[in-house]
Amino acid sequence: MNGAEALLKSLINAGIEVCFANPGTSEMQLVAAIDDIPGMYPILGLFEGVVTGAADGYGRMADKPAATLLHLGSGFANGMANLHNAKRAFTPIVNIIGDHATYHLALDAPLTSDVPAYAALTSDWVRTPESAEAIARAGVEAVAASMAGRQANLIIPANYAWTEGCEPAKAIAIPEPEKVSPERIVAAAESLRSAEPSCLFLGGKALRERGLNAARRIASATGARIIHEVFPARLQRGRGRPTIERLPYLGEFASNVLKDLKHMVVVGTQAPVSFFAYPGKPGTLWPDTCNICLLADQQQDQIAALESLADYMDIPEAPPQKDPALPNIPKGLITAEAVAAVIANLLPNNAIISDESQTSGAFTFEYFDAAAPHDWLCLTGGAIGQGLPVAVGAAVACPDRKVINLQADGSAMYTNQSLWTMARENLDVCVVIYNNSRYAILNLELARVGVEKPGERARSMLELTNPRLDWVSIAQGMGVKANRVTTTEAFQFQFEQAMSSKGPRLIEVIL
Amino acid sequence: MNGAEALLKSLINAGIEVCFANPGTSEMQLVAAIDDIPGMYPILGLFEGVVTGAADGYGRMADKPAATLLHLGSGFANGMANLHNAKRAFTPIVNIIGDHATYHLALDAPLTSDVPAYAALTSDWVRTPESAEAIARAGVEAVAASMAGRQANLIIPANYAWTEGCEPAKAIAIPEPEKVSPERIVAAAESLRSAEPSCLFLGGKALRERGLNAARRIASATGARIIHEVFPARLQRGRGRPTIERLPYLGEFASNVLKDLKHMVVVGTQAPVSFFAYPGKPGTLWPDTCNICLLADQQQDQIAALESLADYMDIPEAPPQKDPALPNIPKGLITAEAVAAVIANLLPNNAIISDESQTSGAFTFEYFDAAAPHDWLCLTGGAIGQGLPVAVGAAVACPDRKVINLQADGSAMYTNQSLWTMARENLDVCVVIYNNSRYAILNLELARVGVEKPGERARSMLELTNPRLDWVSIAQGMGVKANRVTTTEAFQFQFEQAMSSKGPRLIEVIL
Repeated sequence: MNGAEALLKSLINAGIEVCFANPGTSEMQLVAAIDDIPGMYPILGLFEGVVTGAADGYGRMADKPAATLLHLGSGFANGMANLHNAKRAFTPIVNIIGDHATYHLALDAPLTSDVPAYAALTSDWVRTPESAEAIARAGVEAVAASMAGRQANLIIPANYAWTEGCEPAKAIAIPEPEKVSPERIVAAAESLRSAEPSCLFLGGKALRERGLNAARRIASATGARIIHEVFPARLQRGRGRPTIERLPYLGEFASNVLKDLKHMVVVGTQAPVSFFAYPGKPGTLWPDTCNICLLADQQQDQIAALESLADYMDIPEAPPQKDPALPNIPKGLITAEAVAAVIANLLPNNAIISDESQTSGAFTFEYFDAAAPHDWLCLTGGAIGQGLPVAVGAAVACPDRKVINLQADGSAMYTNQSLWTMARENLDVCVVIYNNSRYAILNLELARVGVEKPGERARSMLELTNPRLDWVSIAQGMGVKANRVTTTEAFQFQFEQAMSSKGPRLIEVIL
Repeated sequence: MNGAEALLKSLINAGIEVCFANPGTSEMQLVAAIDDIPGMYPILGLFEGVVTGAADGYGRMADKPAATLLHLGSGFANGMANLHNAKRAFTPIVNIIGDHATYHLALDAPLTSDVPAYAALTSDWVRTPESAEAIARAGVEAVAASMAGRQANLIIPANYAWTEGCEPAKAIAIPEPEKVSPERIVAAAESLRSAEPSCLFLGGKALRERGLNAARRIASATGARIIHEVFPARLQRGRGRPTIERLPYLGEFASNVLKDLKHMVVVGTQAPVSFFAYPGKPGTLWPDTCNICLLADQQQDQIAALESLADYMDIPEAPPQKDPALPNIPKGLITAEAVAAVIANLLPNNAIISDESQTSGAFTFEYFDAAAPHDWLCLTGGAIGQGLPVAVGAAVACPDRKVINLQADGSAMYTNQSLWTMARENLDVCVVIYNNSRYAILNLELARVGVEKPGERARSMLELTNPRLDWVSIAQGMGVKANRVTTTEAFQFQFEQAMSSKGPRLIEVIL
């Protein structure tokens, strides 16, 4: 058994079932191993950003890692933007990165790159095994490391992959997430008992249903608000689940929302800061007079922390919540609001929403509080091009659940190759493209630096016109059935069709 | 004048005319500056790999840098694969990379990344100015540094970009490339006078017409062969220009071609090594008994070195060369060979070919020795997804020349967004897609590791089928006129149409 085969068997032993792949020559031994050894399902992405974004979506929904297969430094670089997002989402991922044979590196062949230096940019777990025999053990350690909510970047030199005489490793125990200390629980309880304005500020696993229920217990007894980070990795929401506040994206609005707080108990995220700096505006969004109390960080057991806090404060179950009302569906020319109203009303039970709608979704997030229960996945790290591949990965992880991708057009272009993988794997994804033909967020940001009426050169960098993208053609070119709509009625018809059938569909909404 | 405006004026002072851009929030000051100050033409790419690949194509043809405008570490990462290629091509490029305000970095906002660490992966020239006032000077230094055939990675913190009270810098002198020492010329002359089998092994600027003419002088007097590196950045070839040998891509063939050599005089490249390592095969491609003599490296004056060598050896002009014959154009079902035969016969004078044809072009490279004079641009660093954006950049640099992109389908997917920029800028590019629906090179490589009959799982990672890509739809979706052909006659008709009109066109060849 060669190193590649031993690695593959070890990854399978450790529970990995899916490998999102875009291999090259230095990974051919691994391709051959996947071919020979049953138990690992390979899924091809036609660009590495698809591969890594899909692994992120998979990991968020499966709560365990997929493997990726990437080609040297440049292949890894193509996947780095979505690995940045996955890092911010604390998603478990095991990246298998092929490298040249160890003795070939000194020759500086054209594709030679410093792979460990690339890999170190997205993770503090980077390993190049010291021998072929060491690959298998490194593989199971990578899986265990990833389960702490991070990426394991395992670099496999080609000559180790082809060396015979290797043995697979057995899975090693996955460490439980650390429990928070009693001192932290006491401190959080003190904050919340103060009778001053307080909030629970939640992210990460605190936004799973159990975490939210515990948070609502606490809030119902203490009067604390519950606010979640702007772009959570996975938020369980919809009818019957606690309805909580979302922190606004723009710093001015966020500061305003938080301005009266005296106590903020943070769980599964960090205290909120502005995405970008602006002249004369603060970077931290809470008031100076607000006391920040970290209950659990992103790698600790956040749900247990919230439940322990509620128990410690001796708080009973919260009374039932009255679900908010569904939005009305308007008629006539389509708008971003009408899109959301239709989807919120027609959302199937237990759907997954991959949201990269950017400005088009900015004012409709709350519509979905009243929708059927669902999981909501966001662009966690701000590196655009995540929505389509995260939908791919979520659909692979949850083949029995409908996935809906709310997708801005500009962001969609970065990883448009995802559509092909949806078609290839017949994934049950409905992509809704908001075609407003601009980087609308940048029009806003340009205004914020004082350019109210941009000239031709600035507009040429912010508008996706001349020509306008035709997403129906692009999708059809990659094998995905697609329709274009300009009215709410037409959108509703197409969306109903998509919800009542299986397989990938794209609906282009002209805004 | 703020830092962004001072930088822009300085870059214009230093001769930069074009900025390939994919900006984000942290670059809005630079967008505003481009809007306000005439002299810099911005060209939007809908993905950073388009931006950096276009800058590579531009720099190769203009022999001076374009600027790029990139957004933080993740935006830079999206462009890194083509920056790797550009590094291997020794292309001058000035990357302007926006970063957070200096005081914002410590807050670890979602898009925060270690931008200098990213930038260091593609260049040893990485600079973050120490103040707003220092930006302008750093800008002109970046241009000068790039002219030595490398990338200058200039990181601009947002707060420096918006700080007022800055002044532009004047251009600084561009250092001439270093002349090689007389000792090197004497050593090369000795090698070539030995009467043993010898060759000139050429890359870089040695492959410009003047360099090739000097090489042919030397070869005609000494009997040395002239061989060029597999994937040159820019080779001037066609009727009336010296016809030289190309080193084969596969190591076995390359070793065979070089096996009798006793002396290799290397100019503008490094002595040839195998792209990848294979068990039991050597990484260096020259025989152990061959003496390697480096005449000029990639950053020295390679053309002057060859001319000085010819003069030193007192060699007269070479006798006229008999041009090779054009290939016959076959009839019937299209093949990769027929595509090349048609293009070689119909190539307009002074065209530019961006070649990322991979296996489909492997056996037809020589056809073009007999074509009208042209420039041939290759995938220099092996990071696929370069052919389309290099065509973009070449067309921007040379608006009066026809650009033809010979493009493998698998590689084309990586930066398919290039098509939109071709349409937006009405670039005179004819894209010829070889649609063989597979990563054919990887089928070959898999066979080389011993898998002659790959099973279903391996084939799923190497074949671009189920569904097959429809490049006509994809191109039309981005505004590029496109046709599909299955016969040589149809291809010839479409290619003639493309050559007799201006603007972007795509021809999908079904193989």
